Amino acid sequence: MGIKYELIKECKQSGARLGKIYTPHGVIETPIFMPVGTQATVKTMTKEELEEIHSQIILSNTYHLYLRPGHELIKKAGGLHKFMNWDKPILTDSGGFQVFSLGDLRKITEEGVEFRSHIDGSKHFISPEKAVEIQTALGSDIMMAFDECAPYPADREYVKNSLERTTRWAKRCKEAHWNTEKQSLFGIIQGGMYNDLRKISAEQIIELDFPGYAVGGLSVGEPKPLMYEVLDHTTPLMPKDKPRYLMGVGSPDALIEGVIRGIDMFDCVLPTRIGRNGTAMTSHGKVIIKNAKHTESFEPLDVECGCYTCKNYSRAYLRHLFKADEILGLRLLTYHNLYFLLKLMEEMRQAIREDRLLDYRKSFYEKYGLK
Amino acid sequence: MGIKYELIKECKQSGARLGKIYTPHGVIETPIFMPVGTQATVKTMTKEELEEIHSQIILSNTYHLYLRPGHELIKKAGGLHKFMNWDKPILTDSGGFQVFSLGDLRKITEEGVEFRSHIDGSKHFISPEKAVEIQTALGSDIMMAFDECAPYPADREYVKNSLERTTRWAKRCKEAHWNTEKQSLFGIIQGGMYNDLRKISAEQIIELDFPGYAVGGLSVGEPKPLMYEVLDHTTPLMPKDKPRYLMGVGSPDALIEGVIRGIDMFDCVLPTRIGRNGTAMTSHGKVIIKNAKHTESFEPLDVECGCYTCKNYSRAYLRHLFKADEILGLRLLTYHNLYFLLKLMEEMRQAIREDRLLDYRKSFYEKYGLK
Repeated sequence: MGIKYELIKECKQSGARLGKIYTPHGVIETPIFMPVGTQATVKTMTKEELEEIHSQIILSNTYHLYLRPGHELIKKAGGLHKFMNWDKPILTDSGGFQVFSLGDLRKITEEGVEFRSHIDGSKHFISPEKAVEIQTALGSDIMMAFDECAPYPADREYVKNSLERTTRWAKRCKEAHWNTEKQSLFGIIQGGMYNDLRKISAEQIIELDFPGYAVGGLSVGEPKPLMYEVLDHTTPLMPKDKPRYLMGVGSPDALIEGVIRGIDMFDCVLPTRIGRNGTAMTSHGKVIIKNAKHTESFEPLDVECGCYTCKNYSRAYLRHLFKADEILGLRLLTYHNLYFLLKLMEEMRQAIREDRLLDYRKSFYEKYGLK
Repeated sequence: MGIKYELIKECKQSGARLGKIYTPHGVIETPIFMPVGTQATVKTMTKEELEEIHSQIILSNTYHLYLRPGHELIKKAGGLHKFMNWDKPILTDSGGFQVFSLGDLRKITEEGVEFRSHIDGSKHFISPEKAVEIQTALGSDIMMAFDECAPYPADREYVKNSLERTTRWAKRCKEAHWNTEKQSLFGIIQGGMYNDLRKISAEQIIELDFPGYAVGGLSVGEPKPLMYEVLDHTTPLMPKDKPRYLMGVGSPDALIEGVIRGIDMFDCVLPTRIGRNGTAMTSHGKVIIKNAKHTESFEPLDVECGCYTCKNYSRAYLRHLFKADEILGLRLLTYHNLYFLLKLMEEMRQAIREDRLLDYRKSFYEKYGLK
């Protein structure tokens, strides 16, 4: 019935957990990073390539798919898995974050959010019930409750009202959620950067008893140490027998710090987006491929990397592709960055298994050029 | 020593030939279509994908590579094959067609062509000797003589002068060509739409004794029947023991008509370019994927096609990718179109083998909706 989380072991060096999530589309080993396929495609990648780099689950965006091509069309196609040719697990967000990001284009009421499409300006309304209806049509393995993500900075009063509305909406989502055999609904803890409000939100959301919980409202512009501090206070409040998902985080250091604090799932457009902009994450830090110093470099992006891109192409060639606006360049850097992060997660799982995650962090940071 | 052509059999129904070209990077079965990798990449495709669809040889453009990243850099990388990770044969054009296409940006003299880069406006000069030097640095298996491609329409006098200069330049290319063990230089027959001038050019170029010959100056805007008429007069003048290459042709009907008239090699950006614009070639004619009628079509592009795209994705999904400006859409249609043309060539080779190429043409045209 829906997903099931198995806690395999806790790291003796940190708060990290090794686990498994059983879903209707297969098992996910955690902690895991989820590549983002906003518009029913992880930008530039095929299913086979995603599998090659060991993507276990991908995320897709409810807001985007609702607007285009429309959840009803995807339902007719047999659901999102079939539509996009991906038979492993899919998590969909609730659309909340995207509609709140529309700024002047949206209006929040207790009932839901009225907004205008970023594509054609048409008027729409998403309520908690609607968010569940859309995600039900999409058929994702994990759907997210419709929440309000407070901006940063935001004053205490605003954040308090917002988290309480998020709780009321979470309740309505749970009531609207009927396809529980095939789809699991996760609750989202809000509370901004206020530790006491995080506690209130965590208690209220956990009280509703979801099969998994996300920490929302982080990675919204705050300094990373602040995010880590909030996590330090929040993850201990979350049940041990349910997966914990930190939304919108994808830089290598934030993934490591999140895992150390007990997070199991992450997603972010960072690796794919910076890849398309010509930035590669490597074991020795970032490489900006268009830089002139790579003009005659016949080395791979990362000599320690075993990915398709690093095994077959030089920096000089990749630089040429980016200078010449060639799509293959976007493909190769996207592939490499996702491989890099998924490999990082795999290495962290191994380090947890061997109770040496803090040692792993130390050596990773030293090489990467952090701290 | 360089390439060698083997004529395997002539079709009893037409002028078509079945053959093999032995090159330093492997054997090519002819007639063949060569996908175009203008900037050292067949747009959107990896080497593995090109192999999957049975690409036997690709073409790359001297003009583009000379300007960016520069032939010296590619030489340092170990040649074009190594630079772009393609170990099968490569043919490079001479850059002639591209520089003549620059219009006001170029000036032709007996010595060569002075032109300004389309990238940064910088001034350059390509002579026959320079064209050979660049192609030698690139290390292509087949290089082309630097020719002048007359526009269409062009008056007789212009075309006559132009073809005679092309002959003088071909001679200079041959003299400049030294890397004959690894690279073969093809001559190009010009003469516009004038059959008698084609004859003069053919005699002069063939007199120079190249290991292969191209028909240039066609598919430059003239009606297709006129192109076929010129081919009818020109291919019989060409030696039977050398490969014949019709430059810049890639529509299914023109490939069929070319093969019937004894052409062995073709290249064109058409399948990749229209693919990126959302047009697919299918056994039942063209499909414009953005058309509204495909919105809820869960059929593949071509039910008779066995390509990766057709086996895994619906028209509805492909349409969504194009409407949403997703790179995967460009990849999937490019892949399909190249597969379609390479399959067409394979089917023609089989039809020649079985002396039924005219029958094949008839059934192809009926399905495709031609004639």
